[in-house]
Amino acid sequence: MSTIREQALACRDAARVVAALGSEAKRALLRDMAAALEAQSAAVLAANAEDMRQATAKGVQGAMLDRLRLDEARVAGIAGALREVAELPDPVGVTTRRETRPNGLSVERVRIPLGVIAMIYEARPNVTADAAALCLMAGNAVILRGGSEAIHSNLAIAAALHTALRAHGVPEAAVTVLQDLGREAMVELLQLVDIVDLAIPRGGEGLIRFVAEHARVPVIKHYKGVCHLYVDRAADLGLALNLLIDGKTSRPGVCNALETLLVHRDVADAFLPRATQALRERGVELRGDERSRALVPDMHAATDDDYAAEFLDLILAVRVVDDLDAAIAHIRRYGSDHTEVIATADQAAAQHFVQAIRSAVVMVNASSRFSDGGELGLGAEIGISTTRLHAYGPMGAEALTVERFVVRGDGQVRHPQSRAQC
Amino acid sequence: MSTIREQALACRDAARVVAALGSEAKRALLRDMAAALEAQSAAVLAANAEDMRQATAKGVQGAMLDRLRLDEARVAGIAGALREVAELPDPVGVTTRRETRPNGLSVERVRIPLGVIAMIYEARPNVTADAAALCLMAGNAVILRGGSEAIHSNLAIAAALHTALRAHGVPEAAVTVLQDLGREAMVELLQLVDIVDLAIPRGGEGLIRFVAEHARVPVIKHYKGVCHLYVDRAADLGLALNLLIDGKTSRPGVCNALETLLVHRDVADAFLPRATQALRERGVELRGDERSRALVPDMHAATDDDYAAEFLDLILAVRVVDDLDAAIAHIRRYGSDHTEVIATADQAAAQHFVQAIRSAVVMVNASSRFSDGGELGLGAEIGISTTRLHAYGPMGAEALTVERFVVRGDGQVRHPQSRAQC
Repeated sequence: MSTIREQALACRDAARVVAALGSEAKRALLRDMAAALEAQSAAVLAANAEDMRQATAKGVQGAMLDRLRLDEARVAGIAGALREVAELPDPVGVTTRRETRPNGLSVERVRIPLGVIAMIYEARPNVTADAAALCLMAGNAVILRGGSEAIHSNLAIAAALHTALRAHGVPEAAVTVLQDLGREAMVELLQLVDIVDLAIPRGGEGLIRFVAEHARVPVIKHYKGVCHLYVDRAADLGLALNLLIDGKTSRPGVCNALETLLVHRDVADAFLPRATQALRERGVELRGDERSRALVPDMHAATDDDYAAEFLDLILAVRVVDDLDAAIAHIRRYGSDHTEVIATADQAAAQHFVQAIRSAVVMVNASSRFSDGGELGLGAEIGISTTRLHAYGPMGAEALTVERFVVRGDGQVRHPQSRAQC
Repeated sequence: MSTIREQALACRDAARVVAALGSEAKRALLRDMAAALEAQSAAVLAANAEDMRQATAKGVQGAMLDRLRLDEARVAGIAGALREVAELPDPVGVTTRRETRPNGLSVERVRIPLGVIAMIYEARPNVTADAAALCLMAGNAVILRGGSEAIHSNLAIAAALHTALRAHGVPEAAVTVLQDLGREAMVELLQLVDIVDLAIPRGGEGLIRFVAEHARVPVIKHYKGVCHLYVDRAADLGLALNLLIDGKTSRPGVCNALETLLVHRDVADAFLPRATQALRERGVELRGDERSRALVPDMHAATDDDYAAEFLDLILAVRVVDDLDAAIAHIRRYGSDHTEVIATADQAAAQHFVQAIRSAVVMVNASSRFSDGGELGLGAEIGISTTRLHAYGPMGAEALTVERFVVRGDGQVRHPQSRAQC
């Protein structure tokens, strides 16, 4: 038996212990995990310094290096996030529906944990604690397979979490950080169909594709966000400009940032030059189609690839469209099913947009940056699903459970002639 | 471009038309599909006669031949099932939750169709119509890949359904019956990740394994039912006997039939001889462990394989267990996550069983044979999921949709400093 399988089996055994914990026991555990993380922050920071040293030596820099970096404030932030998860409603055991059938059977749908969740991510060490907390709150055990750049940080964070698990009588394997980060190990993990109930890949296109290609266990993808803002003919242009600036510039490196602006031709000359100026003042580069460039002559020309791109940077693709349906057709062709926004004062146009677009989140007159579990009321999120199954959009603790049927009777049989005469 | 891909793309285009249909349009369509099936029943029966002739020539017989066979009553039954689906609540567009955030954003969760569903099944031609109806009612298009034995029947049924689709302006591709039934074609279908939103395999172990191995699209398995009845120390033994007889003998060839009986040792001598006699009167063969055979000496010895078997026949595996936890451990080891039953008058024992067992359906004092979409109030079912994700247990129309987020605001931005001064 291989090491990966052994670790996964231990995680599955631990999952049964976690599933049996009551709400208050889980809350106390999460709070103690936060305290343990703070108590061991020196060890976590030392491990992170080693990761930073190796990453710098390999030439990692910029946003990626920043995502890897921890400091006292960030560790405190991670501990704070654990305490927030501890306050979330417990989804496990919740009865979502209840019905009494004509034959007297009581039929309930009750949420149960999924079991063992494999979280596959890249360089952000905070995901190690965040994902562990959400999985535990939903009654699951978790196998964490982070990026090799963050391995020392991830192990140090897990060591702190394990202190709390031990104190609560929960096997350490309930939060398992894999140390073998080779591709073969990941493939083995993704094919443990009798052990792993769900794999959640979060990261770049290459990672998602690799997981989708090799997984035999169920996968919920957290794929790229090519988010669109469509400025309708009936838009309040001041409102639309605010949504555009917030969506593109407030945090360009995240998946709910805007990547493409679509403008109805009737308002293009009133909106585009003004929007261009406001964006350029904020350092945004624009890439447009011919009609956009006719209005803003010094705009770069957009390619087909630009419309499909998740820039994650201060770059915006722009297109003037003939009407609402042309905007919808563009989004269907280039979108990634993540988040789309319409700015319009026309209720009928808004309704048509909402019905025609099948993305996980559709916004009417609100910024794409609200496409986030916390902002939409889930409390915390393990990611934003672009898989149109089970959970679509921001995934909170509830999305880490499933409804099953609990039926209570007093001896009902389906075929009464089955009754024994006794 | 291959034929399978072309057909799937046409199905995806048709899915957009289906998704846009209102409830009444879908109901009218389904009723007309039922009428068309009745009107074309002679053609369907002729096609079925050809399937039966070829199957008989190949040596197919018994239950499999019976599942393939259609007659006027069965065609009428299929039409009746279509009319029943037409009366189901429409899950599409239903708002399941609604919240106003502190910043004034209205956040709704609204059900949308999944898109394109690939249904993969074996020899029962009624599945062709049943699955098509449920998929359409939930706003989806469907690709049907049935068994080669039923291909003439399936095509004739689809031809009837297409008559109704045409009359309603819906592309025929909304109900696509594949004619290329080769393994390569199935693999290609299962890997169309940009087109197929969900594959539902229903059938024997070999089919399910093949689909799970080759699919890159999401799969919800409808796997075997190794269903258990545990007769607790505190059971009403007359009630337990009724559940046993109903579960084992009322329809032994279906997935919610009982396969294993577990009996608490304290009631084994009061229950087992009596149960054995009642079952033998009904033609059931029993295979037991040593303790069972001590009480019923002429019982066959059960092997490990017997405890893991879905007999689908008048055979029952039997084991005497020390207590409730031993019964739970047995089910965890041998069960298939389908349906388990406890017979007990002890509320605490029932609750412990419900919490410890993670199967899709858990019954207290009710027959396993109620594990069925119709019996549990779903109206109709496309199958019984043993995948602990999205839908677990009987899957009705609602399980063929997913919740997404619709957010309405009046210009909210996440970072107010993003506001342009204009």
